[in-house]
Amino acid sequence: MNYREQSLKKHAEWKGKIETVCRVPTDSREALSLAYTPGVAEPCMAIHADKQKSFELTRRWNTVAVITDGTAVLGLGDIGPEAGMPVMEGKCALFRAYGGVDAFPVCLKTKDPEEIIKTVEIISGSFGGINLEDISAPRCFEIETKLKERLNIPVFHDDQHGTAIVVTAGLINALKLAGKEKQNIKVVINGAGAAGVSIAKMLLCYGVKDITLCDRFGIICEGDESLNSVHAEIAKQTNRGHMKGALADAMKGADVFIGVSAPNCVTKEMVASMADKSVVFTCANPVPEIRRADALEAGAYIVGTGSSEYPNQINNVLVFPGLFRGALDSRASTVNREMMIAAAEGIAGCVGADKLSRDYILPYAYDKSAHDCVARAVASSAEKTGVAGKRA
Amino acid sequence: MNYREQSLKKHAEWKGKIETVCRVPTDSREALSLAYTPGVAEPCMAIHADKQKSFELTRRWNTVAVITDGTAVLGLGDIGPEAGMPVMEGKCALFRAYGGVDAFPVCLKTKDPEEIIKTVEIISGSFGGINLEDISAPRCFEIETKLKERLNIPVFHDDQHGTAIVVTAGLINALKLAGKEKQNIKVVINGAGAAGVSIAKMLLCYGVKDITLCDRFGIICEGDESLNSVHAEIAKQTNRGHMKGALADAMKGADVFIGVSAPNCVTKEMVASMADKSVVFTCANPVPEIRRADALEAGAYIVGTGSSEYPNQINNVLVFPGLFRGALDSRASTVNREMMIAAAEGIAGCVGADKLSRDYILPYAYDKSAHDCVARAVASSAEKTGVAGKRA
Repeated sequence: MNYREQSLKKHAEWKGKIETVCRVPTDSREALSLAYTPGVAEPCMAIHADKQKSFELTRRWNTVAVITDGTAVLGLGDIGPEAGMPVMEGKCALFRAYGGVDAFPVCLKTKDPEEIIKTVEIISGSFGGINLEDISAPRCFEIETKLKERLNIPVFHDDQHGTAIVVTAGLINALKLAGKEKQNIKVVINGAGAAGVSIAKMLLCYGVKDITLCDRFGIICEGDESLNSVHAEIAKQTNRGHMKGALADAMKGADVFIGVSAPNCVTKEMVASMADKSVVFTCANPVPEIRRADALEAGAYIVGTGSSEYPNQINNVLVFPGLFRGALDSRASTVNREMMIAAAEGIAGCVGADKLSRDYILPYAYDKSAHDCVARAVASSAEKTGVAGKRA
Repeated sequence: MNYREQSLKKHAEWKGKIETVCRVPTDSREALSLAYTPGVAEPCMAIHADKQKSFELTRRWNTVAVITDGTAVLGLGDIGPEAGMPVMEGKCALFRAYGGVDAFPVCLKTKDPEEIIKTVEIISGSFGGINLEDISAPRCFEIETKLKERLNIPVFHDDQHGTAIVVTAGLINALKLAGKEKQNIKVVINGAGAAGVSIAKMLLCYGVKDITLCDRFGIICEGDESLNSVHAEIAKQTNRGHMKGALADAMKGADVFIGVSAPNCVTKEMVASMADKSVVFTCANPVPEIRRADALEAGAYIVGTGSSEYPNQINNVLVFPGLFRGALDSRASTVNREMMIAAAEGIAGCVGADKLSRDYILPYAYDKSAHDCVARAVASSAEKTGVAGKRA
């Protein structure tokens, strides 16, 4: 039985991967009078006088909503909110297991960006943070941007930034092994959806200078009238040589290839055309842009994939539990770029110099210490950038 | 220290009365592959093919949203969604402790009925049931009615029907002791908000013929042009003698007084004017319509109150955990009137004939066996009335 068949059987047995439990005594008249009426009126009035107290007197301080509209679930596409639930529930289970965060799945029966924004805004008073998940591009950009403007609790779209953070973490360690400097490398990103665009922005902020972004029509170049507004914007900061052509053209001489795109779109020849000590991250799942063995055979120095079956899994499970733990602990009002880079450096730093190798550039997703590391790095960055203690 | 002070201290210590926990292994590559990617794709696709499977492969089957807009929290009034959280969280804790239900508080930052209805509809795919809570009248009537039309999962406004069910349960046992028949009694209800109107409707369905409803302006009478639409409707079925006047006029000769109104609005003289072996339920909280001792002194045969400090607490905590347990277990598409009456009879039946007395007409709220009893009665009624197995 493969993982998918086994997983279906397990889900039918589990009947839910999370559970909401009671943390207080309820077995006597006195217990009820404290946890419920009449005693509960007092914490209610304390919050009425000062809304901040909702983070002290209820579970809000530790609770994150995992929100989807089901339009871009895994590699499965627009399967709808109910069908997205097993992923969201799994995410909530991992939030708890790795980050100690109470997370709750909220799957929305609408695809309209305005309705999504309005709904999240209306329910936001019950939560300490909002994790957006599997919402298709370009709608996800507008939804995240507007929610960040309107809410003073952390809002984070994992498909964009979780992926960008773990890719950056992998790249930090890969460059150490390849002996290259971030400001001198040439990076090609294939796939210009939520993840690809966010990776490009993140690497630019991190200090990478030369990035070329491709989509299925080829290299994205400033001035192309057919670009959507998101691509037109990122085109102003990437591909500064105004190269035109196909992915194969972009990859010639590149130090790093990052694929967040489609199965089998990279050939051995394309990898062979890259610079010496090339880094190849193939995140398409379950079938990668090029098989790991083929990439290595073609000369890639370090290969990372989206699969747990090979070394160097580029897995955003490494990001979200610790990132929200750090944001909640520091009472941050937002997740800013500095916190994201701190998370990437935190993950990279978990792999000690003595253990770092071509087959071990990232910690395992189930390594609890990695998540603790991310949480500390993020909380510390929130303090430094002045967003700690500012949530509302 | 009184309950309210103690409760504030306890809430600060607890930092949340509920918690979301992980029910599956997450400590290895294999575990992650089953609970999350890549395995999770299979249950997703199974639900995509048949939405009903969301009740089998995720926690939806056992999960209820406790939803408020914070407009009518306890006796505290419109204190806002965040300030309502301690009550909603307490309710979720009791859902779990007494009914084994996973419940999650969702406090809405809007008072607009259309926005509330829309928001609940949009998030409903994550839940197996909707418990509306502390939403002010008359908005609560429209909100519940429209949600029941639009959703095929149980929707239940506890302030209306939870109170009506427990009052009916208390009345069933009180009438046994008083030796009176439901079809012959004269009932006066004071308070015509969510609870009062629902109690009137419930008792009419249960078989009580003579009900007079009063509000702060006095007796509600058919034909009065100043009545709102909800009151005009209920006036067609109550006060068939078209009596006009004050509460005191209505209470003369009444067998039963049910107060869901305001502190100290009933005098000893008014109780003394009631029929022999009168039943007086004073649910206003924390200060009742008339003190228990005064009501007894004035001749009341049985007194029930909203407080846990006296015998016969009229507490809707007796209702919601078992009611939703029964509705979820029977996969009911709704909570109909028959299920509500079954719940009332279930609660009343928990007090054995050997134990029934003027000071013990209702089980204690923390008596787990009472909740089990309600659950069985509700599930059985759902079967009988053809709504079991029909949720969608």
